[in-house]
Amino acid sequence: MDSQQFREYGKAAIDFIADFYDNIREKDVLPSVEPGYLIKKLPEDAPEEPEDWKAVFKDFTDNIVPGVTRWQSPQFHAYYPTGTSFASIVGSLLCDGLGVVGITWMASPACTELEVVTMNWFGKLLGLPEEFLNSSPGPGGGVIQGSASEATLVCLLAAKDKMIRRLQKLNPDLDEDLTKIKFVAYTSDQCNSSVEKSGVLGSMKMRLLKADSSGRLRGETLKRAFEEDKAKGLIPCYVVANLGTTGTCAFDPLYELGPVCQKNDVWLHVDAAYAGAAFICPEYRHLMKGVEYADSFDINAHKWLLVNFDCSAMWVKDGYDLINAFDVQRIYLEDVKGDLKIPDYRHWQMPLGRRFRSLKLWSVLKIYGAEGLRRHIRGQISLAQHFTKLVQADNRFIVEPEPAMGLVCFRLVEGDYLTKKLLENLIEKKQIFMVGASCKGRFIIRMVICSQFTTVQDVEVSWKLVKDEADNIVNSDRLHSKSQSIASIDHLQNIDICEKSK
Amino acid sequence: MDSQQFREYGKAAIDFIADFYDNIREKDVLPSVEPGYLIKKLPEDAPEEPEDWKAVFKDFTDNIVPGVTRWQSPQFHAYYPTGTSFASIVGSLLCDGLGVVGITWMASPACTELEVVTMNWFGKLLGLPEEFLNSSPGPGGGVIQGSASEATLVCLLAAKDKMIRRLQKLNPDLDEDLTKIKFVAYTSDQCNSSVEKSGVLGSMKMRLLKADSSGRLRGETLKRAFEEDKAKGLIPCYVVANLGTTGTCAFDPLYELGPVCQKNDVWLHVDAAYAGAAFICPEYRHLMKGVEYADSFDINAHKWLLVNFDCSAMWVKDGYDLINAFDVQRIYLEDVKGDLKIPDYRHWQMPLGRRFRSLKLWSVLKIYGAEGLRRHIRGQISLAQHFTKLVQADNRFIVEPEPAMGLVCFRLVEGDYLTKKLLENLIEKKQIFMVGASCKGRFIIRMVICSQFTTVQDVEVSWKLVKDEADNIVNSDRLHSKSQSIASIDHLQNIDICEKSK
Repeated sequence: MDSQQFREYGKAAIDFIADFYDNIREKDVLPSVEPGYLIKKLPEDAPEEPEDWKAVFKDFTDNIVPGVTRWQSPQFHAYYPTGTSFASIVGSLLCDGLGVVGITWMASPACTELEVVTMNWFGKLLGLPEEFLNSSPGPGGGVIQGSASEATLVCLLAAKDKMIRRLQKLNPDLDEDLTKIKFVAYTSDQCNSSVEKSGVLGSMKMRLLKADSSGRLRGETLKRAFEEDKAKGLIPCYVVANLGTTGTCAFDPLYELGPVCQKNDVWLHVDAAYAGAAFICPEYRHLMKGVEYADSFDINAHKWLLVNFDCSAMWVKDGYDLINAFDVQRIYLEDVKGDLKIPDYRHWQMPLGRRFRSLKLWSVLKIYGAEGLRRHIRGQISLAQHFTKLVQADNRFIVEPEPAMGLVCFRLVEGDYLTKKLLENLIEKKQIFMVGASCKGRFIIRMVICSQFTTVQDVEVSWKLVKDEADNIVNSDRLHSKSQSIASIDHLQNIDICEKSK
Repeated sequence: MDSQQFREYGKAAIDFIADFYDNIREKDVLPSVEPGYLIKKLPEDAPEEPEDWKAVFKDFTDNIVPGVTRWQSPQFHAYYPTGTSFASIVGSLLCDGLGVVGITWMASPACTELEVVTMNWFGKLLGLPEEFLNSSPGPGGGVIQGSASEATLVCLLAAKDKMIRRLQKLNPDLDEDLTKIKFVAYTSDQCNSSVEKSGVLGSMKMRLLKADSSGRLRGETLKRAFEEDKAKGLIPCYVVANLGTTGTCAFDPLYELGPVCQKNDVWLHVDAAYAGAAFICPEYRHLMKGVEYADSFDINAHKWLLVNFDCSAMWVKDGYDLINAFDVQRIYLEDVKGDLKIPDYRHWQMPLGRRFRSLKLWSVLKIYGAEGLRRHIRGQISLAQHFTKLVQADNRFIVEPEPAMGLVCFRLVEGDYLTKKLLENLIEKKQIFMVGASCKGRFIIRMVICSQFTTVQDVEVSWKLVKDEADNIVNSDRLHSKSQSIASIDHLQNIDICEKSK
């Protein structure tokens, strides 16, 4: 393929993407394909000879696109949003076009330095304490990781390394292996699966502590857990606080957890993967009160901030904590400097290689501007509030818990069986996509405003789909008798808000 | 930014990329910027208001591009190649355009299934044993990881999990923590830094065993290491064999290491990050003789196979080994199936989220075809052979060790001081980029054919740059006397081929 063909193929792809979003409402959010559809359809072997780009493109539109779930459809309300925007797509395109790998400064100076600049910009937008920024006099700084999963694990490993160094200083004869197996990590039972997985991957026991009835991990609970474990000879090492849990978007009080961690020299990591984006609006910053206690802070710009996956923005108060844990040197990787202010980012992450991911963050920050992004966040929250009102106006439904950010959880008064049935029927029809969770022992449906294209009218379409399906399955005559049964299971109040499935 | 502006911005980016490669020879491979150049140049804060895409693009071309190292310049000979091609750039663009995350099958059926298909295609192209393929009757299969670093770590963690399950079956009362700290991983002292780092990240002692004088880890060495460790009460758990070491592209004999691993129930992972690409040409497959002993095999399609970073292709013989190690369930992640043939890839990797990366691999396989890719590999090897002849014809130089694939290592007869000086001067002039390594106790310069655009003429330009600089610094009168000094350091022969820098 020469550059002329690339101009044609590339521009056809640009037009395809523009058309795809111009017509995003024309197709169902969920594709009508059966498991195995594409495996059966495509040949068993790669082509032997080159194919013309037009044939390749036709294969893409005819066979692949029909099997795609439309994450940017206004009726996509599952999980949390995944960022996509025209600005980000071009930033990412430029990243691929330059095709550099930022393993050292010399390997591409702009790659390292634009990451420093954009992570300072972004940290300031969020109102993070200055200590987290590369632009501060101290050893703090930001780095782009692939995912919140990766950030949680990177900080767990750094915390483990830091703790062992601290203990070795107190007792140089310490047996490292026997000590490390006593380390314990803590988070709430509302954590994302990736937090629990980080314990598995990083070989550290991870205790999922019971959240309160609002889904928040409280300081007293953490303190008690530390005491229990210390009494058993274990060593508290790492805490992951959640700002915006996956199930119900609850916010752990950092101002309670922080002092407990500080007193015990335990690393406090903040996972604000989704909801952290709202901190660009000053009116939501009270939800991160106590952030000054954190050692590390992570937010997925690729969730709610219109940057394409992968762009998980992570800040640490002390870059040396990462470098100490991850630096493995080689002659061929020697670089011109050793300056924390122009970091060798390969020591701030697990893999050696790294793309020029700051280009997409940069493109979004420039094309939207801070005000544009704030408008986006506020707009999405107001759409969720609009949906909340629609649900609340229908007495067959209960909205619970209190909606937060772009998330509205609801269920049928009739109970779990019908709520589940409602969700299953909706998914079967493929016009709307939501997922379930469990709250206070009851099955709930999570509805999240995900697409940047969503309007008030779209929200009303989504509500109509839900309402019509409820009309199909709920016998309104039975409403009164069933509503009494709610009280009878109120003793379930204190059950984990988002139980793990077994 | 609306879709019309995106069409303009996106197409401008496509043209920029096409022009960038059309004119790749016009600029130096290394940029003429000082550390901190961009940090000083850009504003300290993100813009408050949206900027027009044309202004953003101007900022990109004026400030960012001048600080980019040109990895696709024909004079980029550092590290190993990083894949970029027009076919891959468009594949990646489509991935960003669709903006899906493949956490479950339902989250985007085509995302999971195209990965299955392309990994089968690719595995067959390489001549991997059928057991590794999803299309086989067994539990094997391929998955795209972000990097070889990630693949090495994923398999280390799976090996740890598998070993503990095996031992628990033999002895149900086993203390898991106390057993795990006895696990040992092995690789050669020629391994990439990422292999050593996987031991650090995965909390497993990683022994770097001495390679032979050709840079290969031998079966006898591994066997002895197992015996030594078992005598100490330790438990061999994981071996990483290198097919194409980073320093000198040496190939560990799998047919020697495999039986040793098999006999001891130790997981054998093959890191063929760079050189594995050559196995698409049958004439190089003898270098992976014994691959049937491997439990897992990894090759970076994003190195030598024209696919953009990140696309590390990893196969395992038994997908359940990964699932057992990494599965952490949640209600909101429940999917329609539980079928290994249509895998829930999130259990095959560390992070939860995953992009539609198979699109770029697919685009490259289709646009080049198997034959096109073989031509690419063979062409690059023949260019390296051409460079070898040019160096060998100049008696001031020694080529050592034997060149392999696209790598030629050479040094000045005059010794380390001048070889280092030669490299430093060349880098200072920014027209050619190579990195150093150490071989048999001597400093060597690594010259790799990296760019897909490299021609015979380009190789001659690179050689002329080296030769001219050698003319500047080597006093040919002193040649005879110095050549005697080589013999005197021959006792260094058995020193590690690529020592770590301290």
